[in-house]
Amino acid sequence: MSEAVFDVLVIGGGPAGYVAAIRAAQLGLSTACAEVSAYADPKGDVRLGGTCLNVGCIPSKALLQSSEYFDMASHAFVMHGITADGLRVDVKTMLRRKDNIVTQLTQGIKSLFRKYKVTLLPGLGRFVAREDGGWHMLVGDQDVRARHVVIATGSSPRGLPGVEIDNVTICDNTGALAFDTVPKRLGVIGAGVIGLELGSVWKRLGAQVTLLEVVPEFLPSCDQAVAKEAWKTFTQKQGLDIRLGLRIDGVSRDGDAVTVAFEDDEAKKSMTFDRLVVSVGRIPNTGGLGASSVGLELDAQGRVVVDDRCHTNLQDVWAVGDVVRGPMLAHKGMEEGVMVAECIAGQAGHVNYHTIPFVIYTHPEIAWVGKTEAQLKEAGLSYRTGQIPFLANGRALGQGDTTGFVKVLAAADSDAILGVHVIGTNASELIGEAVLAMEFGASAEDLARTCHAHPTLSEALHEAALAVDKRSLHF
Amino acid sequence: MSEAVFDVLVIGGGPAGYVAAIRAAQLGLSTACAEVSAYADPKGDVRLGGTCLNVGCIPSKALLQSSEYFDMASHAFVMHGITADGLRVDVKTMLRRKDNIVTQLTQGIKSLFRKYKVTLLPGLGRFVAREDGGWHMLVGDQDVRARHVVIATGSSPRGLPGVEIDNVTICDNTGALAFDTVPKRLGVIGAGVIGLELGSVWKRLGAQVTLLEVVPEFLPSCDQAVAKEAWKTFTQKQGLDIRLGLRIDGVSRDGDAVTVAFEDDEAKKSMTFDRLVVSVGRIPNTGGLGASSVGLELDAQGRVVVDDRCHTNLQDVWAVGDVVRGPMLAHKGMEEGVMVAECIAGQAGHVNYHTIPFVIYTHPEIAWVGKTEAQLKEAGLSYRTGQIPFLANGRALGQGDTTGFVKVLAAADSDAILGVHVIGTNASELIGEAVLAMEFGASAEDLARTCHAHPTLSEALHEAALAVDKRSLHF
Repeated sequence: MSEAVFDVLVIGGGPAGYVAAIRAAQLGLSTACAEVSAYADPKGDVRLGGTCLNVGCIPSKALLQSSEYFDMASHAFVMHGITADGLRVDVKTMLRRKDNIVTQLTQGIKSLFRKYKVTLLPGLGRFVAREDGGWHMLVGDQDVRARHVVIATGSSPRGLPGVEIDNVTICDNTGALAFDTVPKRLGVIGAGVIGLELGSVWKRLGAQVTLLEVVPEFLPSCDQAVAKEAWKTFTQKQGLDIRLGLRIDGVSRDGDAVTVAFEDDEAKKSMTFDRLVVSVGRIPNTGGLGASSVGLELDAQGRVVVDDRCHTNLQDVWAVGDVVRGPMLAHKGMEEGVMVAECIAGQAGHVNYHTIPFVIYTHPEIAWVGKTEAQLKEAGLSYRTGQIPFLANGRALGQGDTTGFVKVLAAADSDAILGVHVIGTNASELIGEAVLAMEFGASAEDLARTCHAHPTLSEALHEAALAVDKRSLHF
Repeated sequence: MSEAVFDVLVIGGGPAGYVAAIRAAQLGLSTACAEVSAYADPKGDVRLGGTCLNVGCIPSKALLQSSEYFDMASHAFVMHGITADGLRVDVKTMLRRKDNIVTQLTQGIKSLFRKYKVTLLPGLGRFVAREDGGWHMLVGDQDVRARHVVIATGSSPRGLPGVEIDNVTICDNTGALAFDTVPKRLGVIGAGVIGLELGSVWKRLGAQVTLLEVVPEFLPSCDQAVAKEAWKTFTQKQGLDIRLGLRIDGVSRDGDAVTVAFEDDEAKKSMTFDRLVVSVGRIPNTGGLGASSVGLELDAQGRVVVDDRCHTNLQDVWAVGDVVRGPMLAHKGMEEGVMVAECIAGQAGHVNYHTIPFVIYTHPEIAWVGKTEAQLKEAGLSYRTGQIPFLANGRALGQGDTTGFVKVLAAADSDAILGVHVIGTNASELIGEAVLAMEFGASAEDLARTCHAHPTLSEALHEAALAVDKRSLHF
């Protein structure tokens, strides 16, 4: 097979990888992207978009939306005077809508590759050797030469020792997005983002959902005021059975059912489920790269070691997204993809890791940027707090959805915003303004002096900024 | 009756007025707010909040939300696999929810008055004379002395000559928010914000809605790309019958019905409706103030003339909100209320009139800040445009709601953002980030360099900013 030569070879077509490839091509670099066929489309062709588009962010949001509508129709519509008989959901239609969205978006990435002339190479990229001032690679069995290599191989669900994922009864995120019926009893090991999102989907559709978590704190990376509100809402209002601080002793198949043995402070217990989702974190994908053969440095967690510009220890080899340090978030990977492409093109690429937002797409949604109150205390920083409940917000009242609050943390001396934490409807969209504020080094006063449309949920952010200076106008 | 003496008397308890009063009180000024009993609560007590809370923004948003849910259940749920039989709406329950929200919020303002020690004086404030370095006023029949007076009397619906509003068959915004049944045929004179919002409510609930507009352009203050998209959506997808460029010849009662005679380019026509809403703009409220007796200057449109700080031609007399120049928007009035209170307290109050957002709460929502493309052309400014459809946005696809786009206009030389225009679901919340960007004098590049959470609608703003420089990553 003939040898292909590129300025840039990106290994992996997920958000970090396809963005790196598109940006590199926009900058005039001849670019290829190697993608394995982990998510083949119905015709067997490689699908771009990685975990995020195929079995992550996008399909989960599609099901979260559908299931939220069902939940609203089941419980919230009556206060609006809307009633119906025989409300029901056809899971197959719901899944088909999700699948269509995934197909549309993955094909969209392919169109972008064509538009920007990124060459798609099916297969895993593998290092052979550094030769002639570039990299000799193999993609599948094709020899590829590239001046620069960008590793964007992403991550995979962490497994539990001795627990076999069949993605029918015992599932990771992939299987949990494709149940063809609503399970009666759904167990979830891990009460993190993925467990809560997928647990919420099936709970809303009628499953009895139990989340079993090893860590004793609930949502430890959230601001604890948010975690407390979330706990109250998920467990008391929504009926998710969340159990923290457990030791998981074992998972055993029992015909079509699955039993989890665990211990809490009191005793050894077990619960039997019709389906089990294992969502206990994700691990970086570095297998098959030939990393050790070329001396690519990995850290203790198996991640590719990179500097602030996402350059590895090997000349002209970069790594971005879930396979490197930092939060495993699609948008963090995309920003890194842009940065690396621009650095390769000789520009001053940069990612501001202090202003990367986090979102949990439960209902209410949870979103934040910057530091939590606990982190500020630990760092010994003095701060002021402004917190406004959505109960004091006219739009939230109008929507009939007043759970949660906005909390702004600002430096006691400079008033610079150090963190913004939102739990409430639409938190995912409200956090955009907070991110921009922090990107500009805004003070709480800056936000307080900015006009906010009335009536909007974003007024709660405005009021929280005012509340930092104890001068909220509507609370 | 004894004489009351205050640092500040605010005339009018709508958004501009109550905010001015609260802010003045926060700053240590003894403050009173005079409010007439236009919106008496069930016990006959004065209600604060003005048009906005009582018969404007808040109740309309409550009904818009309820009716949107009904519309979604009627049309959109099927694609999610959600079905039901005998879907129906009880208008009385819908109205009661709206009324409860209004009551809750108006009582909330009263609580804030108590919290900040603002004295509520029932009655219209009236100028008597300037005496002893202050103002001698009458509120009802009580003598009040105040160092400063803030006029915040708001606006009222403009009438049509010869057309009597009974708020049963022929209504302004007040009556249109309280129909006890869904009218079969609803006519609306005026296809502006209020006409479109209220027309949408009753259309979604099953009315046949016709909007009759004198102006030949649709939404002339919007960017015309937005207006065009809105026109297509409202008329073709939603079935609103909107007729532009008419001459209204007359309105006549016909038993329980009402007939509107009008002319278009072709001929004289008439249409008969079961209810008619007149929404042809609003006029400032200056009657009963005793304006002429003290020489308060009004402009040709009857507005109180003010400078940039909202000071009138009379010493220590200020005016804010709908009664002065500028858009009749609650949040614009609130910002002016804060500014005036701070100026009175000797601080440097300021309103940035260039960054006041506009919102139309139709579905899709429309929101914008800054200049339209037509305004930039008229001003002879060179600009670049970035426009991204929500069809290219994963969150919009997930929500099943991909109508519309985000359009960013930036200066060709400096790249400074000059205007942002959004038509789409949640536009009202997305505009917050754009307002903050303009408040900071951001360039499109600044927005393009800011991390946006994935998947969110706000990524469309990010992509539109990238598109200004022709380097969108997902379109």
